[in-house]
Amino acid sequence: MRPIEGITVTVDLEEMKILGFKDRSTVPVPKADGTDYRESSQNHHLGLRWKGISMHQSDGPSFTIDGHKIRWANWDFHLSFDARAGPVISLASIFDLQKQKFRKVLYQVPLEPLRDCPENAVFMDAYVADHNGTPVNMPNIFCIFERYAGDVMWRHTEAAIPGKVIREVRPEVTLVVRMVSTVGNYDYVNDWEFKQSGSIKVTFHCIKARFGSNIGYTGENLHILVGLTGLLEVRGSMYTHKDQIKEEAYGTLLAENTLGANHDHFFTYHLDLDVDGDANSFVRSQLLMTPVTDHRSPRRSYWRVVSETAKTESDARIKLGVAQEDLLVINPNKRTNIGNFIGYRLIPGSVAAPLLSDDDYAQIRGAFTKYNIWITPYNKSEKWAGGLYVDQSRGDDTLARWSLRNREIENKDIVLWYTLGFHHVPYQEDFPVMTTLSSGFELRPANFFESNPVLKVRPPEPDNWSNCSRA
Amino acid sequence: MRPIEGITVTVDLEEMKILGFKDRSTVPVPKADGTDYRESSQNHHLGLRWKGISMHQSDGPSFTIDGHKIRWANWDFHLSFDARAGPVISLASIFDLQKQKFRKVLYQVPLEPLRDCPENAVFMDAYVADHNGTPVNMPNIFCIFERYAGDVMWRHTEAAIPGKVIREVRPEVTLVVRMVSTVGNYDYVNDWEFKQSGSIKVTFHCIKARFGSNIGYTGENLHILVGLTGLLEVRGSMYTHKDQIKEEAYGTLLAENTLGANHDHFFTYHLDLDVDGDANSFVRSQLLMTPVTDHRSPRRSYWRVVSETAKTESDARIKLGVAQEDLLVINPNKRTNIGNFIGYRLIPGSVAAPLLSDDDYAQIRGAFTKYNIWITPYNKSEKWAGGLYVDQSRGDDTLARWSLRNREIENKDIVLWYTLGFHHVPYQEDFPVMTTLSSGFELRPANFFESNPVLKVRPPEPDNWSNCSRA
Repeated sequence: MRPIEGITVTVDLEEMKILGFKDRSTVPVPKADGTDYRESSQNHHLGLRWKGISMHQSDGPSFTIDGHKIRWANWDFHLSFDARAGPVISLASIFDLQKQKFRKVLYQVPLEPLRDCPENAVFMDAYVADHNGTPVNMPNIFCIFERYAGDVMWRHTEAAIPGKVIREVRPEVTLVVRMVSTVGNYDYVNDWEFKQSGSIKVTFHCIKARFGSNIGYTGENLHILVGLTGLLEVRGSMYTHKDQIKEEAYGTLLAENTLGANHDHFFTYHLDLDVDGDANSFVRSQLLMTPVTDHRSPRRSYWRVVSETAKTESDARIKLGVAQEDLLVINPNKRTNIGNFIGYRLIPGSVAAPLLSDDDYAQIRGAFTKYNIWITPYNKSEKWAGGLYVDQSRGDDTLARWSLRNREIENKDIVLWYTLGFHHVPYQEDFPVMTTLSSGFELRPANFFESNPVLKVRPPEPDNWSNCSRA
Repeated sequence: MRPIEGITVTVDLEEMKILGFKDRSTVPVPKADGTDYRESSQNHHLGLRWKGISMHQSDGPSFTIDGHKIRWANWDFHLSFDARAGPVISLASIFDLQKQKFRKVLYQVPLEPLRDCPENAVFMDAYVADHNGTPVNMPNIFCIFERYAGDVMWRHTEAAIPGKVIREVRPEVTLVVRMVSTVGNYDYVNDWEFKQSGSIKVTFHCIKARFGSNIGYTGENLHILVGLTGLLEVRGSMYTHKDQIKEEAYGTLLAENTLGANHDHFFTYHLDLDVDGDANSFVRSQLLMTPVTDHRSPRRSYWRVVSETAKTESDARIKLGVAQEDLLVINPNKRTNIGNFIGYRLIPGSVAAPLLSDDDYAQIRGAFTKYNIWITPYNKSEKWAGGLYVDQSRGDDTLARWSLRNREIENKDIVLWYTLGFHHVPYQEDFPVMTTLSSGFELRPANFFESNPVLKVRPPEPDNWSNCSRA
C-alpha cells in the first residue's frame, strides 16, 4: 500500500536476475497510517460484539461428488480446472420430471480461479503445471455448498374462497460452485449458482485488495484495462489535498500522497450452450412500441415482440442497453407441445462499453469488449477472446477478428460470448481494501419446460436443532 | 388459472351488489390440467429427498428492536408501515467509528407491502384502516433477520514476504428488512439489506402467481402497466397450438387456450436522502473517452471523469443506459480530510424504458417512467409519483408534471426518484406459477468515510453446534 513511484525494473526470468532499473521520477512515499487491513493490527473494534451465525445441515449436503461429476437436485454436471480460465463447467444437464430424462443445457463454460466458504462447504483440489512442467497441487481450489439465504423460490397466497386461504411457499435452496482467485492486486470470487428452476446464475464479486500496479494484465476471460498504462495506475503522488490538483490526475485522491486510478474490469464468458442438443440458433426478440390508430380502443399504443433469428455472425454482435430485447438461444429443431421453440434466455448484468479509441493498443487487444454479445460457430481453436497470446499481441487472434469471417450461425453448434464489465472510479471507501462489488448474469429457461419445473419440488425441511445445547 | 373470458361485471361498492354484466365474447375455458400448484395436489415429486438446511444463531440475533427503532451493527433506523407505500424506512444513520458519531444517510423511503422468512427472523405487526375507518391489525407484516449466505465482505491474500502469507477474510453478514405483498395476481418480496460497509441494497423479487386480470393497478411506487388493457392481459383463447396464431396475440401461448400477455413492471422509489445533513446536491460524473494526440505516449486514449452538479430539475432527468456515468448525491458543505465531497452513489439495477406512446393514457398517468432518475426539491405534497389519485386521472398530479416547474435543486433538501423496471414477455416456465425474478439497486458510500469503514469490524463467529444431537 506504499508504492515507491517511478521505478522500472528489468528482470531476466530465465536466470531470475535483476538486470537493471530506471528511476523516472521522485514523489513522496505515502504514509503507512490506515493502510494495514489485518485484524491483528486494529487497536480497537466497532462496538458490536457479534453473536454466532451459521448455515447448518445436520444430515450433510444433498449433493454428491463422484470424481469431477457433481449431482444435485435436478442438475448433473462436470467441474474441472484450467490454469488460465479457472473453473470449467461442462456437460450440464437438467432432469425433466415430465419427460423423465436429463436434457442438455450447456456443453462447456470456462470461468475464473477458493476458499472463503461457509461451514457446510465441500472442497476440491486441482492441478497446474509449474514453469518447469512439474504438476503442482492446488488444494481447495473450489468449494461447493448449498445456499439457503432466506429467499423464496416461489410463493402464492390466494383468498378466493372465503375462509379458505391457500398459501404455498417454496424456499430457495441453490447449489453454489465457487472459486476465489487473486490476480494482481485484486481478489475475485466467481460463483456459479444452480437453481432447481433450471436457471444458472453467475455472479462475479470483485474485491480490490489495494491499488497497485496491475498494468496490462489481459487474460482472455479476465481482461483488466488500466487506462494510459504506466501513467494512470494508482500511484504515489505529490498531492495531499484535492484542491492542489489543477491538471488531469487520472483518478481520485484516496489518502495523502495516494492516487487511485480510474480503470475498467471486463469479464468474458465463453458459453458453449447446447440447448436440448448441439444445433442451436440465436434469437433477438425486440420489443417495439406499436401505435394504435384505428380508434376502436381508447388506447394509443402497445408493444409487440419481433423475433429475428441471427443468420450470420454480424447479426449477433450486440451492444446492450440500446434496444429493449430478450436474447435467446433456441433449439430450432425442437418445440414444446404447444409449439414454442425450446430455449434458454440470457439476462445480462452490469453493462459497460469500452471508453478507449479503436486504434489504442489496449483496445485493439481487447476488441472483444466492443460488443457485449458475440456468437460464433464452435471452433476448437477459438478459445480465448483476447487471443492465445495476449501480451504484446497486435489483435490478430481475437474474437473481433474471427467474427469478421461472418460465418453462418443458424442451427449450428454455437458459442455465446458474453462480456460484462464496469468502469471503476475509485472512492475513499476503496482504500486500503475495497468491499465487494458484484455483477453477473442469469441463464434462464425460456420455453425449455412445458410449465414451471419446480411445482413438484418438495419444500426442504428446516434443520431441526431445537434440542441442541451450545457447545 | 381458468379464466372465463370476456365478461364485464358492474358492481355497486357501497351496496356491495352486482348491478349487471356484459358477455362480450365466448372462448373455451382452459383445461384445469397442470394449473394446481399446491403441494397437496402433486401426485409425485422430484426424486431428491431434501436434507435439512437452516440458518442458525444459538445466541439469538445481534440486532435490537425498540418499538419501531431498529439498531444493528453500525446502523440505526426507524421502520413503519404505510397502507399504500408499504414499509417506510426513516432516519437511517450509520455510526462512524473514526468520528465516533452517527451520521445521517436518508430521511425517508417508502417502499412496498411479509412472511416467508428464515428461522432466525423476528416479525413485526402493522395497522391499516379498513373501508369504514376501523383499525385492522396486520400481523407479521415485516420480518427482520440477519443473513449469512456464505458470501465475502472483503478478503485479501498477500504473499509478498516469502513464507509469510497474509490472508484476511471477513464474511458478509447483513441485516434484511423484508415485506411480502400480494397485489392482484402477483406476489412481491421487497428486501432492504443494510451492510456494515455503509451500503443499502434494495432487492425487488417479482413472483407472478398466475396470469389474471391485474389491469390498471397503479399505486405510486408500484406501477404495473398492462399493455392495451382489457384486450391484452392474459386470457382464455381459441388457440391450442402456436401455429394457429396468424395475427398479433399480444403475448405467448402458455398452455392450451391460455395466453400470457406481454406486460411491464415499474417500481419507483422515493429516496429522500440526507447525506450527512439535509442540504444535498445531485452530481453526474460522466466518463468520457479522451484522445491522446501528443505522441509522448504510445497510448491513443484514456477516459476521464467530468462531474457536473445539477442546478435545476431538468439537469437531473436521466434515461439510464445512454451515458456511462456515476450518479452521486453529495453534501456540498462537507468534505473529507483530503478534500473530496462527502457522498453516496446510486448503483442502478435492471433498466427499462416505457414502450408506450406519450399520448397513451397508461403512459400519461405513468409518465414518471419516462426517466429512470428524477430529482425534486422536497415538497410534502409531492409523495406519489403517479399522483395522489391514480385511477381515471389525467396525469395532472404526477412527478413528470411537478418537474416541469424546473426548480432549483442544488444544495437543497432533495428527493431522488428512482424507477427500475422490466418488460415481461411470458414463457411457459411462468405457468401456472412463475419463479422469482429479481432486480434492485444499491446505495453505496462514495467518499462518505475517510477510508474503508469495515476494516475494524470483527469477524463474526461461526455458530458452534458441534456438540449437538439431532432432535
